Amino acid sequence: MATNRQIVLDNRPDGEATTSNFKLVTSETPALADGQVLVRHHYLSLDPYMRGRMNESKSYAASQALGEVMIGGTVGEVVESRSPKFKPGDQVVGMGGWQEYSVVDADAPGMLRKVDTTHVPLSYYLGAVGMPGVTAWYGLVKIINPKPGSTVVVSAASGAVGSTYAALAKARGCRVVGIAGGPEKCRYAVEELHFDACIDYRVHGDVKSMSKALKEACPDGIDGYFENVGGYILDAVLLRTNAFARIAVCGMIAGYDGAPLPLQNPTLILINRLTIEGFIVSEHVEVWPEALKELGTLVAQGKLKPRESVAQGLQAAPEAFLGLLKGKNFGKQLVKLI
Amino acid sequence: MATNRQIVLDNRPDGEATTSNFKLVTSETPALADGQVLVRHHYLSLDPYMRGRMNESKSYAASQALGEVMIGGTVGEVVESRSPKFKPGDQVVGMGGWQEYSVVDADAPGMLRKVDTTHVPLSYYLGAVGMPGVTAWYGLVKIINPKPGSTVVVSAASGAVGSTYAALAKARGCRVVGIAGGPEKCRYAVEELHFDACIDYRVHGDVKSMSKALKEACPDGIDGYFENVGGYILDAVLLRTNAFARIAVCGMIAGYDGAPLPLQNPTLILINRLTIEGFIVSEHVEVWPEALKELGTLVAQGKLKPRESVAQGLQAAPEAFLGLLKGKNFGKQLVKLI
Repeated sequence: MATNRQIVLDNRPDGEATTSNFKLVTSETPALADGQVLVRHHYLSLDPYMRGRMNESKSYAASQALGEVMIGGTVGEVVESRSPKFKPGDQVVGMGGWQEYSVVDADAPGMLRKVDTTHVPLSYYLGAVGMPGVTAWYGLVKIINPKPGSTVVVSAASGAVGSTYAALAKARGCRVVGIAGGPEKCRYAVEELHFDACIDYRVHGDVKSMSKALKEACPDGIDGYFENVGGYILDAVLLRTNAFARIAVCGMIAGYDGAPLPLQNPTLILINRLTIEGFIVSEHVEVWPEALKELGTLVAQGKLKPRESVAQGLQAAPEAFLGLLKGKNFGKQLVKLI
Repeated sequence: MATNRQIVLDNRPDGEATTSNFKLVTSETPALADGQVLVRHHYLSLDPYMRGRMNESKSYAASQALGEVMIGGTVGEVVESRSPKFKPGDQVVGMGGWQEYSVVDADAPGMLRKVDTTHVPLSYYLGAVGMPGVTAWYGLVKIINPKPGSTVVVSAASGAVGSTYAALAKARGCRVVGIAGGPEKCRYAVEELHFDACIDYRVHGDVKSMSKALKEACPDGIDGYFENVGGYILDAVLLRTNAFARIAVCGMIAGYDGAPLPLQNPTLILINRLTIEGFIVSEHVEVWPEALKELGTLVAQGKLKPRESVAQGLQAAPEAFLGLLKGKNFGKQLVKLI
């Protein structure tokens, strides 16, 4: 038993999400039943998909129920166990949610996984070697599937997905171009994440300007694009695609607040014989072992060393989450809980 | 040598194409060189892709040069041969263009192909057992790849592609729903082409109304869609897609006249994890033999017997072509030249 602080979804956003949509509550963790373990969370992961869950309308994932703890990935340590599979002190990754502790059925498949922190920091299992990393891997490897020498682009380049995407693309001999907000993020993308170029969307705020910038950064055209944001950036990318370019659609942050953002020129799908594919990485569990192996190796070799933005304490989660949606984070956004 | 009437592209459309974009000219066919054959065309095929060729701007196929004979598929008969591969009387399919005769290098791969009219009428090699048929086949089999029991939809349902699509989809145990213009075409689609339902877009002229009609015609949602038109019909279809639906984009007639038609809600690509793929069938020559074999068999078995709209004489081609773009044709649009 432990005193557990939790953040629940109190009410749904009307347009833009605000901190008043969330409520901090306190409870005691229940006594463990047979087969259960109590996990103390060290880090909570904040990810854009959570915004979709806050809407009542049909989203790409189930709606988050009102009054329930916000869903979210967590890493932590087993502090009590009534399962032979885990013992106190085990380091684990799971979907513990926006709270300090969780009680997990150890037998439920995929709920809790032991991790090794010899070569990979614990928090990375929420980022580069976790869901965002596998997301980048799936989009690049399974959808875009680039040839060496091809040019691949990613929006939200300095984030958890974007930084992993760059490492994976460089390992495959691609030219990799990022799009991010602000000179600091762009410099970071090029200097630390090894992007070949990074375009500041704040400087290129419309389709014409962005399209021109992409032409300069991608002199041989665009063969693959990983979409995290939507809106005019996608329009501009489509204008620069080569024949048979492939586009992995992972997120459309720009459309989360309700107003649908039209795609201005879908005829380009035909003209350039594009393939556009939407995906949710949790629906592709079969690739996780292969993806995590490559990602762990890249980290262990020092080839993937993305920054993290760490908010302190559970109460900081809503503000940090809203900042993430606005691109205020720098690299993987985490909340440190201990 | 023969007197050859030809239709050339005289000037490019400014917006909508008109008959004044074309010019009828007369010339003598040249004497044959070694390896060449002279083909007298019996039928000329009219197809929507030709509209794209008339524009100067980048299209999904090369621009048609001014002053040159309009490109187009033809069937006909060899009347003179200086190639051991063909003899007078051979029935052939090729890309002879909008003219009464063509001189063809018999050795150029893919330029001319002998056909057998024992079980398949000659004109069908321009439709159900030709490029439109293979187009339907590629979109349905290679992109949509439907499971038995799934629901697949096609726009321009009563046309050459649509009618073949229906036969192929029924052969795969699908529910197949068409979209066409007017009660006569819809009745034809259901009664003669074996569509399970057909929606009249003239009655459902906006996204809301079309979406409602699709809901009724596709009670289990839409698993695959073959796009021939673009615009609000595509928007309405996307609203009714099931998770993992697949969309083959073959044409966007609605966008050919210059004004790009936005896709209103691309976020649905992510929400429903859609795959959208543009294609041009001529780039997939590897599938033609397999496709033509199935299509020829369906015709020979009487399972695919689409109507044809036949204009008389080369001079009728421009008017018939413009009618095709406006949906005035009924089934495969041909021009009879002999």
